[in-house]
Amino acid sequence: MRYTRQILLYMRIYVETAFPGSYKELLRHSLQKDQLAFRDEITTEEERLNTLLKADILLGNPKPAYILQEATNLKWVQLLSTGFEYYSNVHTSAIVTNLQDFYSSPCAETVIAGILALYRGMDTCTLLKSRQKWVGHALRVNLQLLYNKKVIILGWGNIGRRVAENLKGFNCDIQVYSRSSGQIRSTDELKQRLPDADIVIGCLPGTEQTKGLFSEEMIYLMKPTAIFCNVGRGNLLQNEQALIDALYQRKLGGAVLDVTFEEPIPADHPLWNCPNTILSQHTGGGYSAEYEGMIQTFLENLEAFKNGRPLQNQVQLSKGY
Amino acid sequence: MRYTRQILLYMRIYVETAFPGSYKELLRHSLQKDQLAFRDEITTEEERLNTLLKADILLGNPKPAYILQEATNLKWVQLLSTGFEYYSNVHTSAIVTNLQDFYSSPCAETVIAGILALYRGMDTCTLLKSRQKWVGHALRVNLQLLYNKKVIILGWGNIGRRVAENLKGFNCDIQVYSRSSGQIRSTDELKQRLPDADIVIGCLPGTEQTKGLFSEEMIYLMKPTAIFCNVGRGNLLQNEQALIDALYQRKLGGAVLDVTFEEPIPADHPLWNCPNTILSQHTGGGYSAEYEGMIQTFLENLEAFKNGRPLQNQVQLSKGY
Repeated sequence: MRYTRQILLYMRIYVETAFPGSYKELLRHSLQKDQLAFRDEITTEEERLNTLLKADILLGNPKPAYILQEATNLKWVQLLSTGFEYYSNVHTSAIVTNLQDFYSSPCAETVIAGILALYRGMDTCTLLKSRQKWVGHALRVNLQLLYNKKVIILGWGNIGRRVAENLKGFNCDIQVYSRSSGQIRSTDELKQRLPDADIVIGCLPGTEQTKGLFSEEMIYLMKPTAIFCNVGRGNLLQNEQALIDALYQRKLGGAVLDVTFEEPIPADHPLWNCPNTILSQHTGGGYSAEYEGMIQTFLENLEAFKNGRPLQNQVQLSKGY
Repeated sequence: MRYTRQILLYMRIYVETAFPGSYKELLRHSLQKDQLAFRDEITTEEERLNTLLKADILLGNPKPAYILQEATNLKWVQLLSTGFEYYSNVHTSAIVTNLQDFYSSPCAETVIAGILALYRGMDTCTLLKSRQKWVGHALRVNLQLLYNKKVIILGWGNIGRRVAENLKGFNCDIQVYSRSSGQIRSTDELKQRLPDADIVIGCLPGTEQTKGLFSEEMIYLMKPTAIFCNVGRGNLLQNEQALIDALYQRKLGGAVLDVTFEEPIPADHPLWNCPNTILSQHTGGGYSAEYEGMIQTFLENLEAFKNGRPLQNQVQLSKGY
């Protein structure tokens, strides 16, 4: 797709995301000639809709999803997420881009941080510190090493690859479950390998194929010392309660859960008291320079868009990738 | 040194370390022909001394240090530690071996676990879990990435090397302070590099040269976002209180301390409330298979000793390595 440079120098950009003030200033400063409209600065719902309908470009993830379909003037939508299953039934002629591997480093590091926290007792030491209590030597017998562990990574997208990269220096035996490119191609093969794994890391996107993929049976096929991690989508688990039961009954060694069925986790939920469990509260993708990174990604794509060059991270809403 | 096989088949072995029962059984089972004496099974101090004085081999770290010098019948001492500065003034004709890189993997992993805990909010999430409190998205702005960070490793022994290896998959810029083999050879050079570092990791043994090496000035040369880690010896810091002040005053981003001046840390010590600080209570070297590993190391060396082969991990007490 090519536009003449002249037409596209002045774009009407609708910003869905509620950026903190300093990041709005960064956008305004970077885009002095374009018309920027920030959703959270428009007072009525009607006016918001009108502004969106006239916009050329949308920055952020609008709700409800069908609004995207109604905004027929849109030429490009920059989603500020990696996943976009929320829009899977939307038809739009606009180019859609997402953040693809933007979250892979933070998500991968959160998983490694969680595993190492359990193995090296960071959770226990944090609680002891808050109670000003020294236990010292007696803690050592509960510690484990990541070195040499057998790891199964579920999913070979950007997060899964980054997890494998982060694990490079720990001499782990890594096997990948991916229907197209893994050493493990089917759930039957996965079931055969699970009893040997020390760590299973779910890095799958939310699609119809991955929903409930990790069954109750699979949880119980894992060693009682093994760790289950999930940094993809909460619904990867067929039955989250089965995982919780396995943890309470010490039939599973631990869990690192960035995503869960219910978010926020309600105050009386059994996950809160689950032993050997790290709950990172869906912060896996976060880091202090997150907004800057989003804006940087958007500006780079905008420059390409204005100059008729292909955009980075284009996706097909209906296909899920 | 060579002994005839016959004489050395039956050794008098004095076990200083108070092994749990199952590990004593493992030793007894493995050494049926040797005379094993476990210190904690001998009732009087006099009898203990007599048994030690007759022993051919000592397993463990005796206190006080001069006992080692008095036990002139000893042919080999297997220390069950990496450091041995406690024995630096002891003269003995016995071969002395230590555990050298036995603790390097666990120590290195504890440091990486601590850094990632701070960067990815594992400490915060652990405390929130204990309070059953969801914060979620608002936590993200406080998170950091290990990816691409500038790291200075103080000391290029087994732990420092293993730390560097563990960091392989995080694309860090690593510089090593080591007088013999680092990119940074002197404390003056170190001072020049400190303002650029995101992470400083102390992995130095306790010698006269390393005592107080990391000065108050150096702490304040670090960035206010930087993390100071110490998994070597607590006395690497010239002034621990200066580190504590810097953390309280947010002139330093965080600390991961496996070792401290006082151990145990007293209940009213300011370290307990230090912000952004992981206190791993000198558990860095620990892991569940630690005793098994020690016994394995000892048995391998014993086999070599009985067969007149050179022992692994020999050290010179007076030299410090």
